[in-house]
Amino acid sequence: MAEQRIPRATAKRLPIYYRYLNILLDADKTRVSSTQLSEAVKVDSATIRRDFSYFGALGKRGYGYDVAKLIEFFKKILNQDQLTNVALVGVGNLGHALLNFNFHQNSNVRISAAFDVNDNIVNTVQSGVPIYPLSEMGRQLQDQQISIAIVTVPERTAQDVTEQLVKAGIKGILNFTPRRLSVPDSVRVQNVDLTNELQTLIYFIDHYAEILPTEGEQG
Amino acid sequence: MAEQRIPRATAKRLPIYYRYLNILLDADKTRVSSTQLSEAVKVDSATIRRDFSYFGALGKRGYGYDVAKLIEFFKKILNQDQLTNVALVGVGNLGHALLNFNFHQNSNVRISAAFDVNDNIVNTVQSGVPIYPLSEMGRQLQDQQISIAIVTVPERTAQDVTEQLVKAGIKGILNFTPRRLSVPDSVRVQNVDLTNELQTLIYFIDHYAEILPTEGEQG
Repeated sequence: MAEQRIPRATAKRLPIYYRYLNILLDADKTRVSSTQLSEAVKVDSATIRRDFSYFGALGKRGYGYDVAKLIEFFKKILNQDQLTNVALVGVGNLGHALLNFNFHQNSNVRISAAFDVNDNIVNTVQSGVPIYPLSEMGRQLQDQQISIAIVTVPERTAQDVTEQLVKAGIKGILNFTPRRLSVPDSVRVQNVDLTNELQTLIYFIDHYAEILPTEGEQG
Repeated sequence: MAEQRIPRATAKRLPIYYRYLNILLDADKTRVSSTQLSEAVKVDSATIRRDFSYFGALGKRGYGYDVAKLIEFFKKILNQDQLTNVALVGVGNLGHALLNFNFHQNSNVRISAAFDVNDNIVNTVQSGVPIYPLSEMGRQLQDQQISIAIVTVPERTAQDVTEQLVKAGIKGILNFTPRRLSVPDSVRVQNVDLTNELQTLIYFIDHYAEILPTEGEQG
């Protein structure tokens, strides 16, 4: 299937489609219309059809999309047919919550190693995940072939840890710190800035009328 | 100052600018160029200038922007001159981590009430925040004039809780569950979908060459 370059907004919606399709499969549904899909995932149906068309997944008029086929298709695109191990750096309150977070449900992702400087937890297993000292990070990431790390360290150490991760060959970072990280072009950073999310929400509510609507999507 | 309708992407960057400007102020800097700002917040300087121009905040050639003035300006836009109380619903692992999360640093936001069904924690104070039973939600939200809620309940109860929140007059929801919530048009939902973030990051790394670059911004 010929792939073409796709917009970032489309890429971000793929996991949402994938998850909902799995719910349909669990409920023994064999097909779905773009209108039904639209209703469930809160993305307008024109956007869904355009997103799907990037991958050559075209529904049939009056039939919709075949659920099992779409799942197979997205599973491959999202690399869900193989387990992806990720690392977590910083086992504080938020880090600990993420160790317990059910990433695995409907997603083939697993935190397989965590790193911290706290002697009380280093070399123990927390929520099923081994905690290593930071000094072993390079070796463990290479041994376990981990290319993605979740960073939940304090803001002041975020850039230092990032440089160690880059040196260890990491390719992607999910950054929960408010610090904007400097990385080489070959490394992708995705920011989950919780204070920012709250402030933006407050701003949107206070300035509802002044914000331009974007293509029919929440959040 | 005449405000005009602004793009959503711009609105999302405002808290990032605001936070960095506070760091500059703490470091006794009185002015900043769009190039310096760009370097620090990882947004290209043309985008910064365009964002600022929506608000009529124009730098002077060869001088840049006045830090104190910009802060005053953003503080007002972001409603940071008054405290915003928010509620949290669902005090599990993630909810508990968020009660301990330092939203307050450089942001005038505070979790002032939490709600849960667990008798072991209901009517106790956790991390400085009172935990109420769900049955008191409507009354507490009205008494405390809270219009924003963070939802960290299990996926299966997310829609139910949302409907109770809407009934209680909530205007904005920060949704940490994977469920896409149905709300009236007057309520804004912002989704923080952690599995989605990880899957998107994996997808981007696997398909680096196929994704169209967007305006110079991370995350």
